[in-house]
Amino acid sequence: MDDLISIRDLKREDVELILNTADEMEIALRSGKINTEMRGRVLANLFFEPSTRTRFSFETAMLKLGGSVIGFDDPKITSIEKGETLSDTIKTVEKYCDLIVIRHPKEGAPRLAASVSSKPVINAGDGSNQHPTQALLDLYAIKKLKGKIKNLNIALLGDLRHARVMKSLIYCLAMFDANLILISPMGLEIEKEMVQEVKEKFNNEIFQTNDIYAGLRMADVLYVCRLQKERFSDPYEAKKLENAYKVTPDLLKQAKDDLIILHSLPRLGELDRRIDDTKHAKYFDQIQFGVPVRMAIIHQMMR
Amino acid sequence: MDDLISIRDLKREDVELILNTADEMEIALRSGKINTEMRGRVLANLFFEPSTRTRFSFETAMLKLGGSVIGFDDPKITSIEKGETLSDTIKTVEKYCDLIVIRHPKEGAPRLAASVSSKPVINAGDGSNQHPTQALLDLYAIKKLKGKIKNLNIALLGDLRHARVMKSLIYCLAMFDANLILISPMGLEIEKEMVQEVKEKFNNEIFQTNDIYAGLRMADVLYVCRLQKERFSDPYEAKKLENAYKVTPDLLKQAKDDLIILHSLPRLGELDRRIDDTKHAKYFDQIQFGVPVRMAIIHQMMR
Amino acid sequence: MDDLISIRDLKREDVELILNTADEMEIALRSGKINTEMRGRVLANLFFEPSTRTRFSFETAMLKLGGSVIGFDDPKITSIEKGETLSDTIKTVEKYCDLIVIRHPKEGAPRLAASVSSKPVINAGDGSNQHPTQALLDLYAIKKLKGKIKNLNIALLGDLRHARVMKSLIYCLAMFDANLILISPMGLEIEKEMVQEVKEKFNNEIFQTNDIYAGLRMADVLYVCRLQKERFSDPYEAKKLENAYKVTPDLLKQAKDDLIILHSLPRLGELDRRIDDTKHAKYFDQIQFGVPVRMAIIHQMMR
Repeated sequence: MDDLISIRDLKREDVELILNTADEMEIALRSGKINTEMRGRVLANLFFEPSTRTRFSFETAMLKLGGSVIGFDDPKITSIEKGETLSDTIKTVEKYCDLIVIRHPKEGAPRLAASVSSKPVINAGDGSNQHPTQALLDLYAIKKLKGKIKNLNIALLGDLRHARVMKSLIYCLAMFDANLILISPMGLEIEKEMVQEVKEKFNNEIFQTNDIYAGLRMADVLYVCRLQKERFSDPYEAKKLENAYKVTPDLLKQAKDDLIILHSLPRLGELDRRIDDTKHAKYFDQIQFGVPVRMAIIHQMMR
Repeated sequence: MDDLISIRDLKREDVELILNTADEMEIALRSGKINTEMRGRVLANLFFEPSTRTRFSFETAMLKLGGSVIGFDDPKITSIEKGETLSDTIKTVEKYCDLIVIRHPKEGAPRLAASVSSKPVINAGDGSNQHPTQALLDLYAIKKLKGKIKNLNIALLGDLRHARVMKSLIYCLAMFDANLILISPMGLEIEKEMVQEVKEKFNNEIFQTNDIYAGLRMADVLYVCRLQKERFSDPYEAKKLENAYKVTPDLLKQAKDDLIILHSLPRLGELDRRIDDTKHAKYFDQIQFGVPVRMAIIHQMMR
Repeated sequence: MDDLISIRDLKREDVELILNTADEMEIALRSGKINTEMRGRVLANLFFEPSTRTRFSFETAMLKLGGSVIGFDDPKITSIEKGETLSDTIKTVEKYCDLIVIRHPKEGAPRLAASVSSKPVINAGDGSNQHPTQALLDLYAIKKLKGKIKNLNIALLGDLRHARVMKSLIYCLAMFDANLILISPMGLEIEKEMVQEVKEKFNNEIFQTNDIYAGLRMADVLYVCRLQKERFSDPYEAKKLENAYKVTPDLLKQAKDDLIILHSLPRLGELDRRIDDTKHAKYFDQIQFGVPVRMAIIHQMMR
């Protein structure tokens, strides 16, 4: 593993290695053991787009490995403002660090970065394309919370067309033989090519629907993603759709008793706050897997 | 001490413990001894409002204890921009750190943060409410510079209604039996309820006046705070008041010979720059106590 | 060396000591040896003006020495916004750190900072005045890439009037007996006083021209700096000049076979991208000397 740009770059063994390493990292973290394997190493966190959780969890992962972090979270205060190309920025920053993490609004930017950098590059989200480390942490979360991935009915709900994490996640889940239920409003379905690719490659079941009730009924896991309202020209239309696909206590009466609900957060109106107090709500537990999984990824890439 | 939200949460023994620990920290710092007690631990500095000195001094305190720091100093570049609630932000960030420091423009925000976080929370200033760590460092500064707190005549000068540090400080000083002189322009007096509470609780003298000459004459310590001009609708009115309550060399002719002057900084027009060169000026010495006092606070909260 | 404000503050022995120390740092970095000499020490990076490379390379230099970094890269989020003077900011920040690095849009600001700070201060660029650490790294780069400085024909090309690094660099190169060729568009020549000072002090050859062909022909090193278009009232005029002085593959046919090209980056139109693939292009190699040279500077100032 030289770079981690798309989940497609990983073989099943690679993913298993990361999940197992994450397990060891989590145990060590909990025991309070101090890890210093990255002492003297510097990670560059290049966030060309705002982020709290992804940025913080990479930062904490590197710090908990004994390393250090440089970076920016607002490209306005860098030379990019002066008109520098991404390629020049990367060829510069790589001289100051041992590992690059990049989030960028343009699809393909991390791939370009990896092609000009001699240091390992990790994609922390590019436009509506990929977000492989989030998918790995979600996979890990499901495995820890449900004990397995295989044969689970996993429903992905929301704007599947634009949510980058979903594209990485569908691929991952199919690779580990989950049954996929894709629930989205009309017009926001995931691209057909993506579904086709996954079906052909892993030969597993994918059930697609616009009906939230039909989709939810048999799910073991419900993964909710937010409607990207900024993509709607009519805010009233966005609000109407959000309400129609909102997860409410009422809706959950239809659900399996041991359903767990995940969300990549931040959440807005798509998830009723009354759900927080139910046994189904696992989205805040999910977050805590971000650090051990990213520690495992850094560990694997820097060995 | 699980959290440090208001100075009211502390008993006299708690405060004494912090001051004594700060003393030890200061001695160790000066000797160049390297402290590593926070190795592997991460502090999250969440500044929802601009700050240089408080943010830097928490950061340096954690670093000098061998720990690391993540955080933001501009909420615009976080998910808060996307409309996330404070409660969700805290439930997320606490997964990435061992300790949270929060500054927020809304009164009560740190208390809310503490109520949803399983990690310790320190209030680094909320609106015009409380700023307990600044009060502790001021208390420490007075003790170091004057040798004691008890029976000192301590004058607090300026816009006492809006300066959050004053509310924490009055409480602290009264707890250690100082005599308080509160000098403020008409209409900017501290709330009556606050004075009443302190009088009843600690049974000590509080002298209130609008006359800067009357207040200053008997003071051993003069603590100046800036006029918050942004709260005036008429800038001319603000300037006039600032001039009337300005500390000048002329005014100091009325003062005790060993008067010391403190200020939480930044200062604007309320403190004549010619005072910097007098023996009374101690506001730049005061700053240096920020790091050892905050090291002591972190140490006590993380044991 | 208490502070490093202008290259004029350094004697030849000081510069040699830095270059030799940088050599040792580079060897140690490459061997993966972990340096901890700055453990427990804090560097404050005060960037009152945007920067990627200078800020990152100081940060990484301090981290690779085992130290920590605090700072800001956007003065809007500090007390400076509230109207604090630079002098007050420095007298405050120096209490939180062991070493200050400052970049400021106003000429002379770092000198002022040094005069009020009891901690060492390094100038990381002030207006169009000085940028001594960049000059030192360029000097080091030339020495490493060409094996020597003495008697090399070194051409500096571009807007020499406003490029601060050029003022520091000319002085450095003359000190080490290089022959200088100054090529700039009419009206953007370096100030006469600067040329006069260097000639008198070091008694070396300086050839000035507006003709890029005449200047380039005999050069061993070509150092290109960008046209500061923001200084032109007419963007068309700026573009015309940029084109007239652009370094192109065609132009390089006139050059010595072993010419090397340097650039302080970021670059815009002044350097044809087709040059990147030629053996002359050394500007991305140049960057990697930033960390060891700044490690050497910090090491020398903190001993």
